[in-house]
Amino acid sequence: MASRPEPATRQYDEKLQNILKASAKIFAEKGFHRTSVRDIARTTRMSLAGLYYYFTTKEELLYLIQERCFVTLLQRWEQAATADMDERVRIRVFAENHLSFFWHNMHEMKVMAREDESLTGEFAEKILVLKRRYVKVLLDLIGVLADKENGKGIDLRVATFTLFGMMNWIYTWYQPKRDMPFPQLIDQMLRIYFFGLLKGGAIEAPWFTTRTTPAGKLTFSLWEKKPKDSAR
Amino acid sequence: MASRPEPATRQYDEKLQNILKASAKIFAEKGFHRTSVRDIARTTRMSLAGLYYYFTTKEELLYLIQERCFVTLLQRWEQAATADMDERVRIRVFAENHLSFFWHNMHEMKVMAREDESLTGEFAEKILVLKRRYVKVLLDLIGVLADKENGKGIDLRVATFTLFGMMNWIYTWYQPKRDMPFPQLIDQMLRIYFFGLLKGGAIEAPWFTTRTTPAGKLTFSLWEKKPKDSAR
Repeated sequence: MASRPEPATRQYDEKLQNILKASAKIFAEKGFHRTSVRDIARTTRMSLAGLYYYFTTKEELLYLIQERCFVTLLQRWEQAATADMDERVRIRVFAENHLSFFWHNMHEMKVMAREDESLTGEFAEKILVLKRRYVKVLLDLIGVLADKENGKGIDLRVATFTLFGMMNWIYTWYQPKRDMPFPQLIDQMLRIYFFGLLKGGAIEAPWFTTRTTPAGKLTFSLWEKKPKDSAR
Repeated sequence: MASRPEPATRQYDEKLQNILKASAKIFAEKGFHRTSVRDIARTTRMSLAGLYYYFTTKEELLYLIQERCFVTLLQRWEQAATADMDERVRIRVFAENHLSFFWHNMHEMKVMAREDESLTGEFAEKILVLKRRYVKVLLDLIGVLADKENGKGIDLRVATFTLFGMMNWIYTWYQPKRDMPFPQLIDQMLRIYFFGLLKGGAIEAPWFTTRTTPAGKLTFSLWEKKPKDSAR
């Protein structure tokens, strides 16, 4: 039992996930550069030697958190998007996936937003590849929509990053006790994004083609094998 | 000539501005916590003793940058908004002021976005007061609009921070050589914000009541006495 577990086993993965989750929290609270591996050892109640079995540098840890975020976002998107959806619904599903991911993983969101330039060399390059792949999904969807609709004249990059911006900014202002719960939040944001502030509020629900992702599917933590609500 | 200049003199203020500008650039590039006062001394070619005449701690420096940003934003807003504007135009002027400020002061924007939690104690409290005052301007404008228009049903906080989010996010993606210049950028963002992606592109220019701020007025650096373009 004391034998070193093989990587990719369940036990190894769960331990690594716990380390990544705890690290994301500390990075979000203290900042990446002010956090020491000793801080992480204290929080996870692991020895330094025990920690270094799972990663070799603090930077690798930051890389692993960011990689896990993008891979999870992409996987969940690929599962959620089905062939029968038109591009409007696909944009909605993409946005729901994105916002719900970060709504349930606010520490990771802070780390992604604040420490996006803390990675160097190969780590930075690998994350950039994933990030571009992820951004391209939304860019292409908006491109299809723009071709079909009378959205001509709107720049694709502006339209894409406007949606990312309004969603990603929630880590700076959203207060769970004060603000509306997730389903209303994403609904309001998408109303503004698609129909504008002036008309968005007047669109009657259901204003969009069917909500294709069950609400439970949108409630999840990055670090759990199963979505929180799937056990209910 | 070697006598210590009185605070609030022109010379004092210009020197301090240079220090703040240089510091904002280093904080944006290296991060606040990884920057030392020695780094700032090297860039500004000043001695440590010379620097400490203008501030007492590195944290005060960060405070002074953030304070100058909010005070400038509020002053410029008060100058730009006139009594004859209705709330739509005022929202547009507010957004133009905000985005143009950060478009021309991208380092400061990064510092504001990334180091918003790096201040502590009294410094943090003072900035929070300024920030709330600034946010309340937009919140109130959108409130007036929501009462008049059929925007009922849209949450004021969501509507307010959605606009801030889409604008503030530019520091993560905007590339001057690749993306559209400022006047088009703010135009596109406000089209999406007011009319939505689906209709925004189809609104013919001039889609809004007159642009009340001359373009030159929107081109400025935080740290210069006069806007760059005003001398042209």
